[in-house]
Amino acid sequence: MTLPVKKAVVLLSGGLDSSTVLAYAVAKGYECYALSFDYGQRHKSELMAARKVAKVLGATRHEVVKVGLSRFGGSALTSDVAVPKGRTGKEIGTGIPITYVPARNTVFLSLALAFAETLGAYDIFIGVNALDYSGYPDCRPEFIRAFERTANLATKAGVEGNKFKIHAPLIKLTKAGIIKLGRKLGVDYSLTLSCYDPAPDGTPCGACDSCLLRRKGFLEAGEEGA
Amino acid sequence: MTLPVKKAVVLLSGGLDSSTVLAYAVAKGYECYALSFDYGQRHKSELMAARKVAKVLGATRHEVVKVGLSRFGGSALTSDVAVPKGRTGKEIGTGIPITYVPARNTVFLSLALAFAETLGAYDIFIGVNALDYSGYPDCRPEFIRAFERTANLATKAGVEGNKFKIHAPLIKLTKAGIIKLGRKLGVDYSLTLSCYDPAPDGTPCGACDSCLLRRKGFLEAGEEGA
Repeated sequence: MTLPVKKAVVLLSGGLDSSTVLAYAVAKGYECYALSFDYGQRHKSELMAARKVAKVLGATRHEVVKVGLSRFGGSALTSDVAVPKGRTGKEIGTGIPITYVPARNTVFLSLALAFAETLGAYDIFIGVNALDYSGYPDCRPEFIRAFERTANLATKAGVEGNKFKIHAPLIKLTKAGIIKLGRKLGVDYSLTLSCYDPAPDGTPCGACDSCLLRRKGFLEAGEEGA
Repeated sequence: MTLPVKKAVVLLSGGLDSSTVLAYAVAKGYECYALSFDYGQRHKSELMAARKVAKVLGATRHEVVKVGLSRFGGSALTSDVAVPKGRTGKEIGTGIPITYVPARNTVFLSLALAFAETLGAYDIFIGVNALDYSGYPDCRPEFIRAFERTANLATKAGVEGNKFKIHAPLIKLTKAGIIKLGRKLGVDYSLTLSCYDPAPDGTPCGACDSCLLRRKGFLEAGEEGA
């Protein structure tokens, strides 16, 4: 007799954090359903990275779902506002950045919940991280807990006693800690893309907050970068 | 000196309930931003009804946002599963119906939250109703409260002290009570569409749960129907 395989939905942007989370969930024995969003982000290189990562790390299925967030505007990641470049570590750590997309993680987790319920999956993985990005309110543990509670009240599955669990395994790790974890799990970070403003061919700009934090993370993890 | 106008986002499907809610929010003096979704529902007549209702009731703006929910399947409203017809009142009130769309109100409220935050609106209106449709878990007051709490933890606005409020003014009304409220507010229900399975020209089927509950509501409100 074999034990039934547990399914999980893993939010996958194609960046460093979410790719590490996918490797983590696969290593924990979950059958992983990766979920990415086409939400009007400036560039599609992110989605191309997600496709490669999902395949290489062994996701059972990868869905890319369209969400018209760009109709609302209000963020450097979806509109014509310039992505800030060359900020210092102190500047990056202060306040909520212009790259904040209103309610993004709430929207993404809601769609992950819808996907999970149709699959009969009760585990949802998200690569939020409260340390390096204290500026995003929807990366905090209290947000994750509140969403989990909402999910269990919102759904047929929750009402019928199958409790949803939102896993945020990176939430207390530094970027260097995330990279070290990913290396142990065999993640090839050259497939991932963290840049907010890459060239049309997917080459990272090297100067946005995300590129700078990534570079700092690799240096602190004792690597030259990837 | 004039008082600043308060903005609200109103979820509008084009059906009886959400149209009544829009009329209610307008009557309360809100500048209303109506929000509808193209989520792969079987028919577009619903969206056409929403457009007419938004215009006639005086919404300041009406956005229709695409959300690829149909990629997940799992509901009679988005997939090829047949919409049940001719069920009795007792059957309608029992269990969670096949027309349940997984996590729908969580997804819709999340997108309303994203829209509200970009507008600087802190009031969100939704036409959920716990009485006639006890079968949908995401129509219950405890779900609405949990989502509101999540919204205030998720957002920049929430963190900065602007509290979001989710208004569900119909939650304890019967269908007849909703119709009576709407009549007082001048709603022309002939513009609205409640049917789950209308003909291509938008004519209601008259036999799905939603048509049957609507008809019952009008009879109980002392009307022949609309």
